[in-house]
Amino acid sequence: MNGSRSRSRPEYIPGHIPDPSYVRILDTTLRDGEQAPGAAMTAEQKLRIARQLAKLGVDIIEAGFPSASQEDFNGVKMIAQEVGSKCDDDGYVSVIVAMCRCNEKDIRTAWEAVKDAKRPRLLPFIATSPIHMEYKLRKTKEEVLQIARSMVAFARSLGCHDIEFGAEDAARSDREFLYKIFGDVIEAGATTVVVADTVGVTMPFEFGKLIADIKANTPGIEKAIIVVHCHNDLGHATANTIEAARAGARQLEVTINGIGERAGNAALEEVVMALRCRGDHVLGGLYTGINTKHILKTSKMVEECSGMHLQPHKAIVGHNAFLHESGIHQAGLLKHRGTYEILSPEDIGYERSNEANMVLGKLSGRQALKKRLKELGYELKEDEVESVFQNFKAVAEKKKRVTDVDLKTLVSDKVYDVEPIWKLGGLEVTCGTMNFSSTTIKLITIDGTTHVACCVGKGPVDSAFKAVDLIVKEAVKVLEYSLNTVTKGTDAIATIYVVIRKENTHSPTSTLNGNTVYPTFSGIGKGVDVVVSSVEAYLIALNKMVNFKE
Amino acid sequence: MNGSRSRSRPEYIPGHIPDPSYVRILDTTLRDGEQAPGAAMTAEQKLRIARQLAKLGVDIIEAGFPSASQEDFNGVKMIAQEVGSKCDDDGYVSVIVAMCRCNEKDIRTAWEAVKDAKRPRLLPFIATSPIHMEYKLRKTKEEVLQIARSMVAFARSLGCHDIEFGAEDAARSDREFLYKIFGDVIEAGATTVVVADTVGVTMPFEFGKLIADIKANTPGIEKAIIVVHCHNDLGHATANTIEAARAGARQLEVTINGIGERAGNAALEEVVMALRCRGDHVLGGLYTGINTKHILKTSKMVEECSGMHLQPHKAIVGHNAFLHESGIHQAGLLKHRGTYEILSPEDIGYERSNEANMVLGKLSGRQALKKRLKELGYELKEDEVESVFQNFKAVAEKKKRVTDVDLKTLVSDKVYDVEPIWKLGGLEVTCGTMNFSSTTIKLITIDGTTHVACCVGKGPVDSAFKAVDLIVKEAVKVLEYSLNTVTKGTDAIATIYVVIRKENTHSPTSTLNGNTVYPTFSGIGKGVDVVVSSVEAYLIALNKMVNFKE
Repeated sequence: MNGSRSRSRPEYIPGHIPDPSYVRILDTTLRDGEQAPGAAMTAEQKLRIARQLAKLGVDIIEAGFPSASQEDFNGVKMIAQEVGSKCDDDGYVSVIVAMCRCNEKDIRTAWEAVKDAKRPRLLPFIATSPIHMEYKLRKTKEEVLQIARSMVAFARSLGCHDIEFGAEDAARSDREFLYKIFGDVIEAGATTVVVADTVGVTMPFEFGKLIADIKANTPGIEKAIIVVHCHNDLGHATANTIEAARAGARQLEVTINGIGERAGNAALEEVVMALRCRGDHVLGGLYTGINTKHILKTSKMVEECSGMHLQPHKAIVGHNAFLHESGIHQAGLLKHRGTYEILSPEDIGYERSNEANMVLGKLSGRQALKKRLKELGYELKEDEVESVFQNFKAVAEKKKRVTDVDLKTLVSDKVYDVEPIWKLGGLEVTCGTMNFSSTTIKLITIDGTTHVACCVGKGPVDSAFKAVDLIVKEAVKVLEYSLNTVTKGTDAIATIYVVIRKENTHSPTSTLNGNTVYPTFSGIGKGVDVVVSSVEAYLIALNKMVNFKE
Repeated sequence: MNGSRSRSRPEYIPGHIPDPSYVRILDTTLRDGEQAPGAAMTAEQKLRIARQLAKLGVDIIEAGFPSASQEDFNGVKMIAQEVGSKCDDDGYVSVIVAMCRCNEKDIRTAWEAVKDAKRPRLLPFIATSPIHMEYKLRKTKEEVLQIARSMVAFARSLGCHDIEFGAEDAARSDREFLYKIFGDVIEAGATTVVVADTVGVTMPFEFGKLIADIKANTPGIEKAIIVVHCHNDLGHATANTIEAARAGARQLEVTINGIGERAGNAALEEVVMALRCRGDHVLGGLYTGINTKHILKTSKMVEECSGMHLQPHKAIVGHNAFLHESGIHQAGLLKHRGTYEILSPEDIGYERSNEANMVLGKLSGRQALKKRLKELGYELKEDEVESVFQNFKAVAEKKKRVTDVDLKTLVSDKVYDVEPIWKLGGLEVTCGTMNFSSTTIKLITIDGTTHVACCVGKGPVDSAFKAVDLIVKEAVKVLEYSLNTVTKGTDAIATIYVVIRKENTHSPTSTLNGNTVYPTFSGIGKGVDVVVSSVEAYLIALNKMVNFKE
């Protein structure tokens, strides 16, 4: 049994779960998630994500739609052969499922792609709502019923014994028709039936009722698992999914970060953490096999591979999800974490020590500032704290977020108040198609001495920074160099942000809950000439570094 | 009456709504929204947003927390004096509310800030849950009750006749205590009582039950409006808000884009559109006074002012919310919009004609490509479409999203297949602290002729582009010039993206549902030298423009 999972996972049997409180999680990031506009992934990226989904403890990985393209077929095949064939330390292996339309060609292709998995599954689907049958399929109810039955039987005839039948747009389908089609496909060999809210239109109370009705009225339903697949068009995907589980669904289809067509799908992290947080209290003991400590890592991997960035306030995995800015909330948290925190960041994989979850901003008070300064290694006297606090408030009124780097700068400005040591006297840069660039620079020190140097580099910024280094003679590591244009046109103002630290620093300024913290310094430059602005930003950061007393 | 609202709005009376189906919307973007880490806004930005919230038809604007800072006080005061004092064409004016803790100083400050509004309201709040009272407030139930009663009475004594009392962390409070405190404050003069799910922990069915219980058991509740304020920590804020309305809440507290502390608040656009889409069907006829056509504009304004960017799959207002990529969905939509669309983009302020809501990607089929090409003004023969389709598939396998610009390029590559007219022969750029830059450039034409020019500009890129223009002699408008560094260090590879069109083009290539479309051309450059890469990108775009047959 995996130690970080709350309970052991019941044995996998198609169409049956030995423990009635266990809820299976199907992740469809690689299929529905990838259907998000702009989220297309390569087969290799999908394989990487599938490996991570297996670590996360996903019961069923929907690996793709093999008929969509050769790349999609390859992805599913690679995942089935690798991730679908390797048992974890508990002897557990994820089911690999491939989606297919209800026709022989699609089903054959899908089976070809997944059959090498230890637990292969096919997911043939067809629309069951009046609007989809009439306008999209142009078929009658009877025709749809006949296709569904015969295609499930066909999948079975290929040797597939785990078949998930999907009723597309089930939420807008006629109830009696759903009972009938689900009853028929179960008889034909389906082990799992999907109730899809394809357009994301239902409210939790009606969706819960639909699931309860299906459970009560579908012939043979005790031989299959009821599944829900919810979309988020009205912001209800997670709530609908949880409500369906309360009503009897025992497989929940979700995606990492909630990505998917349009407004996406129910998010794995929200569904799983809601069950974890509330399962024992109000959700009748329901639980999943997800190892929640892998959530954060998985989320970041999907964000990167899919290019679907998350908003800061995305629940559970957004940058702000565990951050507290207002003075009232921060003061409460310092007294008791439970006042404003229902989950702990460690549950999803944060190391709290590395990621401070209080952000300082204009609403923050003295207490929070003092605590943070102490964590950063500064033991200041009361009047020093007060003086830093006044400057902090002034900066915070102007700036969205006061970072640790800003705080350190505030402290050094105040406590180690000094003039900049190096000033820019003049600069001339030449670049072009000769594949190298040269810079001549003049720096003036605090005592008025002039230093001139000239240097060659790979591009204009590289040569300019190297010329500065020749004069300043400090071993500097550039940690970040970013450049953004903020207005339109070629005479736009560009903003350059540079972060540096000393190369080979052996003396960290402070330790933060056991982790060493090396001092870093930043500078910002702005202007029409990106090269000049870059040098200005670099000098600001350098002056901070040189002034810093270790 | 405002023509784009679905129904007229009932008269505003504190503590009473003439129409039992009408649900008031309180927007707290400027208070709870601003508490999001990093979302601080200036008083001027808040005033701009407040003006827009009034246009949107928000019943109550929570303008800020005047005790938090001088800037916050100023923001509330400006909003009360301007937005709170101007009636719209229907003679309607939004209520302006200011939050305050339950102490005389906070209440006095808040009243000072809002009292100039036509409909001023105060929102004193205090925590009512055992954990908050014990650890944060360090007060007994009796003390909290006494403070709540006396502070509501104090607010009233200042001349405020519309008082909203907030029970912080109500969702984790003892029910009997809530009945008691709400009963007491209503007796003391509160017109509205807030049930806050401060930590975002409830599930819809339990939250609905809580609201129903409060409605049934609080003495004097018929004289006040029940309000809910939900947070999204477990992804349930919108569903909890809607369920509470079903159970009797008649004021819903929301923020634009769902911004707020941690995972944010219930999003105005989700709550309002769920009521609009489902109000008449399953939500008992509930409706709001929101003019939904202003949603998109308001969302964009808040995104910009708060710096809280939206993920592409954000429901209703995300970039992808109305986009459809997969071939199956696109084919369905072409037959009947209702197959995959429950709301129309126009409802929230899109002009459909300007914003194509099908994205072409690797899952798109021939039908969608052909339709889009036609919309872009290309009438191609079947074999030409087929040939473009093959290239389109190849591009789509590599690129996340195939844009209209890409499509035009594919068409011109295929149908107007020509060599680039201008090639870069050589380039030398000088820049520095003289506040101008100069470029010498050599371009070679398709027939081998060499052209040399030299030009001065404001920065290295500006001078280089101007030098190109001197030779090419086309009137070019640079619509976009963006630059991103993708790796770390000063020898990072920068990617430059340039979009241009002809200046003063009088002949649009096509009309798209009545709107003229001017041809635009893009180029991408990559390399260590940002200046050289910029020129390369510019030449790619220029060659496309020169080759383009109007």
